[in-house]
This record gives sequence, structure tokens and C-alpha cells, in this order.
Amino acid sequence: MTHPGWFITLEGIEGAGKTTAAAVVAQWAKARGTAVVQTREPGGTPVAEAIRQIALTAGEESLAPEAELLLMFAARAQHVRAKILPALATGATVICDRFTDSSRAYQGAGRGLDAALIETLAANVEQGRAPDLTLLLDLPVEIGSARAAARRGSAAQDRFEQERAAFFERVRTGFLAIADREPRVVVIDAAAPLAAVQVAIEAALNQRLGAGG
Amino acid sequence: MTHPGWFITLEGIEGAGKTTAAAVVAQWAKARGTAVVQTREPGGTPVAEAIRQIALTAGEESLAPEAELLLMFAARAQHVRAKILPALATGATVICDRFTDSSRAYQGAGRGLDAALIETLAANVEQGRAPDLTLLLDLPVEIGSARAAARRGSAAQDRFEQERAAFFERVRTGFLAIADREPRVVVIDAAAPLAAVQVAIEAALNQRLGAGG
Repeated sequence: MTHPGWFITLEGIEGAGKTTAAAVVAQWAKARGTAVVQTREPGGTPVAEAIRQIALTAGEESLAPEAELLLMFAARAQHVRAKILPALATGATVICDRFTDSSRAYQGAGRGLDAALIETLAANVEQGRAPDLTLLLDLPVEIGSARAAARRGSAAQDRFEQERAAFFERVRTGFLAIADREPRVVVIDAAAPLAAVQVAIEAALNQRLGAGG
Repeated sequence: MTHPGWFITLEGIEGAGKTTAAAVVAQWAKARGTAVVQTREPGGTPVAEAIRQIALTAGEESLAPEAELLLMFAARAQHVRAKILPALATGATVICDRFTDSSRAYQGAGRGLDAALIETLAANVEQGRAPDLTLLLDLPVEIGSARAAARRGSAAQDRFEQERAAFFERVRTGFLAIADREPRVVVIDAAAPLAAVQVAIEAALNQRLGAGG
């Protein structure tokens, strides 16, 4: 009997290698016989992607921090209801590039918004289905920023990419604080060579979700 | 000395006559020497209007109730920060077609979402500046719906206008419950002839905000 699908999230600052990590996780899950749904936040459904556009660009208008937070959770509410829960219900493994921990790190630690408000929103939006495993791809801010810049090339930066190093330091610290208190989070050294990152991810998956398959 | 501006909100189901009422309030405030900013929710700024589009249309995707609620408060957070508070700070009177009471009535009473969550959101978004006066334009649902249909003509209904009478009965009851517990709310009989509604609105303004001018 194959295992029912897992809900696995990938977290980290820009340039941490979440996309590459998602491919490793997908391969691991498929090898264990589950269908795989790869998705991302903010976004994942047409409505949630429309919300993402507002949250990441906002045009010429400065976006209020509270509005940013509520847009992220509005997109998440839609994503959970319309895509994540239905996919899990079919037995698929859902691999999500960013989830609630990104709101805790970016809007909480980064922007200084109230942690209690964020937890209230999380409790109302996650519908009781927290991730089974979260891989936190951690690396120094300057390395992540350099990687993100190289990948971006001449494309325009979004509202988050325009933030300064001090903001990303707060975000990184925020992520590590979540990992300290939440057993579901495994920290992966994302500054290591790619092959070592892949080994670490597979080890985390085997250890936390079972070596069978 | 002129009075610093007031923050006055208009509430009620579709077809209650909020637009006409707003004009009466604007005239009253201008006669007392304050500048007037008329605005509406969801919306009032370019970003908030973009959020309104998502909340009111959502395309072919069914919008999760929690997503709808959070979109309304995201738009409100932006509106409060970018338009309402700055306008009040200049001494203007702000007249707003719908505000937090609409979330209480539509998403709370209408959709059955958690009242405690709504109050948490309100406390975080209103920035301590609740309306000075709220005029609740109350009328039977069938009269409001008939008026809204006549006004709309052949234009398409939005997501809310497509709801059934039972939904609007819950919304109306929700509005009246707010009026029962919140002294800032004055109920206006919006089924009365237009001239009588105007007299009632002016009487409420004089009584609550002072007859001087």
C-alpha cells in the first residue's frame, strides 16, 4: 500500500534554491508511489495569482504592511481551499514553495507585524492541516541575494526583492526562530554544494517521512 | 472655528439608498465648513479597487469565504492607511460608503464566519479610528432588491448581488444587531419617502455631531 500524500513546504529567503529543492522532493515522493502536485505561494490558483500580482507589485501606490499581510493570507485561504486540501484528499503529495512560515518571517519578523495576529490568521486559514514537513533552506543573506540577482538578470525586482539586506537578515532570523520552536521544520544548509544539499534533503525526507518505498 | 472633520460611514443592504444618503451627509458637512472626502469600500485607492475587483468578480473560480473576508480587510487596511487617516488628518470629513460593519454583516452574519476573527481584524486594521457616526439605512430585503434591480438594468450582477433573499435577510439582521449594541449607529428607515429619509439623516447628524454651524 502506498502512503497517502504528504504536505511538504519549502521555505527560505530569495536565492536559497527552493525550486531545485522542490524537484528533489518531487522525485523522492514519486519514487514512493504518490502523485505529486507542485504549487507556490502567494498564488497557486487563478484568484490567488491575481492577489499575488497586487501583493508583489502594487503599482505606484505604497502598500500598507497590514494590507500586505492580509493579501498573503487571502491568497493562502483560497489556495488551501481550492487546491491544497482537494489534492491531499486524492492522496497526492503537495509540495508548496512558501507557506505560512513565509508570512511569519517576511511580514512578522521582516515588517514587524503582530505575531498574535499572524497566528490567528494561520489558525483560521490552514483549516487544521499544517505541513507534515517543512524544509528551511538557510544561507547567508549576501549569498542568497547574489544568486537571486544572477538568476533575475535584467528583469525588474518585485516589492520584496527591492528590500535592503537588513530586512532579509530579519527574515532569515525569523525563519531560524520558527525552526527552533517547530519540530516539523528541518534546516538545510543551502550554502553547501548542490549535491550536498540534495543529500541533506533526501536524508530529511527519509528520516521524517519514513525510509520505506 | 470650524469643527475638525468627522468620519461618517453609510451601511445597509443593496438598494438602501446609500449614494443618495452620502450626498445629504456631504451637503450637511460642507455647510459646517469642513472639506469633504467621499469614498467607498471595498476600494477607495487604486490598490484597494484592484482588490475589490477580485472580491466582487473572482472569475470562474469559487471564492473561499475566508479569502473573501481577508480580501475585504486587506482593501480596508490600504484604504485606512492611504486615504481615510490622511484625509481626517487634514481636517476633512470622510464619508465612506460601507466600512467594517459591512464585513460584520455580509461575511459574519451572511456567510457565518467567526465574529471573533472579524473583531481581531477590525482592531488591527482600523488603527484606533472607528467611525464617529454610522447611518444604517434599513429597509425590507424585497424593497432593496427591487430598487437595486431597477437601478442595475441589464448590467451583470456581482458576486453579492447573485445571492438569494435568505442571505440578505441574514445580512439585514446582522446590521440591526450591530445597531443594537453600538451607540455610534443610527438606524434610518430607508423604506420611507426620499424627503423623509433626508430629514431623518439631517436630524441624526444634528443630534449626534452637534447642531452648530
